[in-house]
Amino acid sequence: MAVNLDPPTELKVIDGVTLATGCAGIKTGDRDDLVLIQLAEGSVAAAVFTQNAFKAAPVRLAQRHRAEAPTRALLINSGNANAATGTQGLRDAIACCQAVADALDIDVANVLPFSTGVIGERLPVGALRDCVRGLVGGLAPDAWLDAARAIMTTDTMPKAVSRSVELDHRVVAVTGIAKGAGMIRPDMATMLAFVATDARVAPGPLDDLIACANRASFSLITVDGDTSTNDAFTLIATGASDMPAITSSEDPRFELLARTITGVAAELAQAIVRDGEGATKFVTITVQGGASADECLEVAFTIAGSPLVKTALFAGDPNWGRFCMAIGRARVTGLDPDKVSLWLDDLRVAAAGVMVPDYTDAAGAAVMSAPEFQVRIDLGRGTASETIWTTDLSYEYVRINAEYRT
Amino acid sequence: MAVNLDPPTELKVIDGVTLATGCAGIKTGDRDDLVLIQLAEGSVAAAVFTQNAFKAAPVRLAQRHRAEAPTRALLINSGNANAATGTQGLRDAIACCQAVADALDIDVANVLPFSTGVIGERLPVGALRDCVRGLVGGLAPDAWLDAARAIMTTDTMPKAVSRSVELDHRVVAVTGIAKGAGMIRPDMATMLAFVATDARVAPGPLDDLIACANRASFSLITVDGDTSTNDAFTLIATGASDMPAITSSEDPRFELLARTITGVAAELAQAIVRDGEGATKFVTITVQGGASADECLEVAFTIAGSPLVKTALFAGDPNWGRFCMAIGRARVTGLDPDKVSLWLDDLRVAAAGVMVPDYTDAAGAAVMSAPEFQVRIDLGRGTASETIWTTDLSYEYVRINAEYRT
Repeated sequence: MAVNLDPPTELKVIDGVTLATGCAGIKTGDRDDLVLIQLAEGSVAAAVFTQNAFKAAPVRLAQRHRAEAPTRALLINSGNANAATGTQGLRDAIACCQAVADALDIDVANVLPFSTGVIGERLPVGALRDCVRGLVGGLAPDAWLDAARAIMTTDTMPKAVSRSVELDHRVVAVTGIAKGAGMIRPDMATMLAFVATDARVAPGPLDDLIACANRASFSLITVDGDTSTNDAFTLIATGASDMPAITSSEDPRFELLARTITGVAAELAQAIVRDGEGATKFVTITVQGGASADECLEVAFTIAGSPLVKTALFAGDPNWGRFCMAIGRARVTGLDPDKVSLWLDDLRVAAAGVMVPDYTDAAGAAVMSAPEFQVRIDLGRGTASETIWTTDLSYEYVRINAEYRT
Repeated sequence: MAVNLDPPTELKVIDGVTLATGCAGIKTGDRDDLVLIQLAEGSVAAAVFTQNAFKAAPVRLAQRHRAEAPTRALLINSGNANAATGTQGLRDAIACCQAVADALDIDVANVLPFSTGVIGERLPVGALRDCVRGLVGGLAPDAWLDAARAIMTTDTMPKAVSRSVELDHRVVAVTGIAKGAGMIRPDMATMLAFVATDARVAPGPLDDLIACANRASFSLITVDGDTSTNDAFTLIATGASDMPAITSSEDPRFELLARTITGVAAELAQAIVRDGEGATKFVTITVQGGASADECLEVAFTIAGSPLVKTALFAGDPNWGRFCMAIGRARVTGLDPDKVSLWLDDLRVAAAGVMVPDYTDAAGAAVMSAPEFQVRIDLGRGTASETIWTTDLSYEYVRINAEYRT
């Protein structure tokens, strides 16, 4: 099950980025589970990582390598998260980066490692190292979709998006891939996402770009409220496009590029929710009339995280009571229930805290029978508004996660 | 499904308390859905209510009535929560209390209303009023088990506990009933629970008694992390026992009585978890080695609330990685993963943040195949320790909640 859109077909090449995929035998079957991404010299990379205290070894090593040297290569494996593996896990991640460094003749600190999959098991370093050697010869600019496939775990579909934007008469391209379907509730970033552009951007504004894109994409989705030990979102600007560098967020080109990159990130983030484990509904939750953006997000995520709301979404049951319960449980001081209104798409369900007289359950159920709809709440306290995306909780979610290792 | 213990058989009569049950036609079938409890003059009642902002009409009215007059009667209906019903809901709750007041010749403020069931629908006041009149003639001291049955909603079994304790050569009795199976995550109290004793206790120490019992019972359980709009826990001391009143928590009898009442409340709280919607496991989660009780509870409730942990509990899968993920997601500043240890019953799974060498998944799975087991975590930061109780997340939970109204 999933509420996916059509799979991506054509993806734009990003000058300065080449990719290769291979099978290191971590995942079962003959599926690719290793991706090598090489970045041309002069590329700038920005990244945000999980805020989970149990940060995986590759996350800790990537943070260290980023502080030490410019990034020239990314190594991503799926099937094993190399998380909760202690100092041995860190040594294993270093060994994998070293294999890339040897093969590409760069320093180990130029390599960032990423892992996703089962937590608490040791990485098969030997197999990974052997596979890396074979990948170097196959690096190609048009392997984005193969890479999107190779990083999948419980995903049912590869997630990839391309866009282009004209910056001062020069067209630059943006291409991104992501993976993720469960353990999705970003306190910052979630899952793995890699977005690259050939625009030329200095490190400072690139950090601003990733913060801005992350805030409006991966930070606004939840499948099950759980956060991964391995979440990372990496943004690369190769600078291969013939343009003067963007050196400040005041540059008028910054906003155009930010909008494009945010668009790519938001589409990837929504693709993760659409492919949410067991998802049968893609639900947009908008909370408006809040006193602050934070309280709108608190209410939206409390609704999106409530098992009772999620099972009602699954059933297509317009259960106003469960929405009330979740809104009331959100940590919003002084919320007045008698000012709360609720709509399903454009159908008004409740106003002033009670169901409106002309509302019928049949009309509510009709909206919720669609695979996609919006739940909109007005808190009646102010002018702030936020929108997030989530899924329902189905039998299939339980099956996928109960049978994950068995 | 459920992990229930045997149903209660004999319950102690509490002098000064009489009960009657009837069918007002709120629930489907011919099941009793209304309970009237009368308290002898001189009884003292203490109560704690939900902290959900969408407090139901009966909760708001009960709080008002308690402030106005001593409590002489409780009216409890199941099948309809009278929540999110606005001022009409308040008027309906008042009308029900008035019917009791008329029938018992007491003031309306002497009556506390309680409702549980579907949220957002109007109470059938006429049917309730008619039923109340019939109940008065049937009030009897030995109807506790009937009352426990009549307040059930998705519960599969009545929840009732009796104990007695000798206070200074006088034996006093404590009997309690509760209902609840889903929407269980007390920020304070959860579900409906009514505990009565014939001990003589002044209002001040009775408030201390309920706070103490609530803290160690209904505040330590979670089924699905959702909190109800109608939660209430009421403690009654009729004073019918021939004893000098307990007028202070310094009285040596206070601690004996507190221990007994807490025991009854904890057993009722655990009975709610055992009967959790779709539960196939009764899991005790202990977090020790914390710097404070609060952070132990934060970690314990994050684990107990994680859908990924709960599906692993359902599968009997000793998925160390999911425990790590949940521990890491808890809001504990400066948590060091390399100091975390984990046990399943007495089986050591992990120490210093990694799986111990002699641990095997087969041994972990053997522990988790039992219907009851303990997950114990040591944070390695201090000496605080807390224990809570929870359930797994099964297909049946999804079915029950997806089909609740259909």
